[in-house]
Amino acid sequence: MYGAIEAGGTKFVCAVGDESGTIIDRVKIPTTVPEETMAEVIAFFKKYELDAIGIGSFGPVDVNPESETYGMITSTPKLAWRHFPFVQAMKDAFPVPIGFNTDVNAAALGEAVHGAAKGLDSCLYITVGTGIGAGAVVQGRLLQGLSHPEMGHILVRRHPDDEYQGKCPYHGDCLEGLAAGPAIEERWGEKGINLVDRMEVWDLEGYYIAQALMQYILILSPKRIILGGGVMNQKQVFSSINKYLQEFISGYVTLPNLTEYIVSPGLGDNAGITGSLLLAHQALRDKGTGSLSRRDK
Amino acid sequence: MYGAIEAGGTKFVCAVGDESGTIIDRVKIPTTVPEETMAEVIAFFKKYELDAIGIGSFGPVDVNPESETYGMITSTPKLAWRHFPFVQAMKDAFPVPIGFNTDVNAAALGEAVHGAAKGLDSCLYITVGTGIGAGAVVQGRLLQGLSHPEMGHILVRRHPDDEYQGKCPYHGDCLEGLAAGPAIEERWGEKGINLVDRMEVWDLEGYYIAQALMQYILILSPKRIILGGGVMNQKQVFSSINKYLQEFISGYVTLPNLTEYIVSPGLGDNAGITGSLLLAHQALRDKGTGSLSRRDK
Repeated sequence: MYGAIEAGGTKFVCAVGDESGTIIDRVKIPTTVPEETMAEVIAFFKKYELDAIGIGSFGPVDVNPESETYGMITSTPKLAWRHFPFVQAMKDAFPVPIGFNTDVNAAALGEAVHGAAKGLDSCLYITVGTGIGAGAVVQGRLLQGLSHPEMGHILVRRHPDDEYQGKCPYHGDCLEGLAAGPAIEERWGEKGINLVDRMEVWDLEGYYIAQALMQYILILSPKRIILGGGVMNQKQVFSSINKYLQEFISGYVTLPNLTEYIVSPGLGDNAGITGSLLLAHQALRDKGTGSLSRRDK
Repeated sequence: MYGAIEAGGTKFVCAVGDESGTIIDRVKIPTTVPEETMAEVIAFFKKYELDAIGIGSFGPVDVNPESETYGMITSTPKLAWRHFPFVQAMKDAFPVPIGFNTDVNAAALGEAVHGAAKGLDSCLYITVGTGIGAGAVVQGRLLQGLSHPEMGHILVRRHPDDEYQGKCPYHGDCLEGLAAGPAIEERWGEKGINLVDRMEVWDLEGYYIAQALMQYILILSPKRIILGGGVMNQKQVFSSINKYLQEFISGYVTLPNLTEYIVSPGLGDNAGITGSLLLAHQALRDKGTGSLSRRDK
């Protein structure tokens, strides 16, 4: 039996289940300060006899097992959580193997094993919500190099009619700065949920996301692209993405039918927690290092 | 003993050697039409008793062993080579395992095993010359998904003072269209080699390459970046790249010292042929499928 944590900036979802994605208990805990939130997390898991724990965390996080700060949340704007030793805190409470990765990598793993990319050894999972993040499975393993990817902050070309300055504190008008939920709200003066009928909103959104997908495709060549997050609940964005992506790629790369290639999460909102269960499973198999240098599937 | 082919659009370099990169014989053959070029290639290798052959080819090529067109050059603008069954042609002449990949992936592999990224399980090799191409080693294996990467064609933002329209037949002003050798020549009216003292030429070149590196870093997080190809012989481009990359990344990602992180090929012009010898070695070990789904190191 595994414990899984999907640690988000607003709430922690904790679950107990197995690597098939079956969940026998689940709780939501508000993300306040580590002392408070973690006390509740630990109390929840103490009810069970766990064999391993998997964590998919908001970040940035240090996922390099050879690093001195492995298992920590690093430079997050949420100050109370900056430099929080997440893995160590869990290890102190539970002497079991602990898998640790980003929330989006966990979701990518969940989708690759049980969701919309089941049976494929490669997929890209992107969430477009309060921020934009992405995780990738490449040749059966979660993508990792120097660190985990930070795909939400890539540069895009501005639409010539878009005068919005962008909202990213680091880059201004990078992808996240132009296309995440808060950018939509600030540009149009309303939350996206109140703009459903405004075609131009979702056309522009597709324009930016399609540029990002073009870069991801040319660089990673994923076998399937999964788009989740609150913004992607506006299904009209998908057709705008497909239109612009074809225009931008311009026949240079042969892609599968786009309606089958670019899809919604197969696991819905459960991608992250399912992936975290899989991270627990891998950690047990890999004897607790949570290392990404081992096979993930 | 292995045979290796670095198949370029202008010439084929063929070599006989081993996986340590030792080369005992080498020949250059002009790239004309397949009948002519391949006859010379085969005649060269027939002098030796080969255990396996590795091919790093110009492309696009089909590198998916499960595909019906595996081992072929696909949509190249070099019409005589379009749909040329490269692997089959070699198999017909030599009944040995054959490894097959792109020229830039071969170079990335050579650099990862014996060159500037020796000892690392991750690197990105980019060539900036007649075109722009890149190969990547990720967690010890050549990056492959739906197909091989096509990183040279990513979108970049135009410099506000750059009015050159771009030279890519597919995308106009993508990275290759703005920053490859022919674009430099057309924009400035002179070959790059005659523009060595024109600071603004190399500053602009660095501006575009730095944008590309930012995207590659945020998406792939390579442990080292190796920049080769004719344009990169202008060493002043490196300082321009480093300047702009720091400006664009804007502290969001912590990178190693850039002068150690972004480097010239350790193998010089031998990266591709050394990598092709390694492809031969892998093909023998993997029993001739040349599959990238197996470990490369």
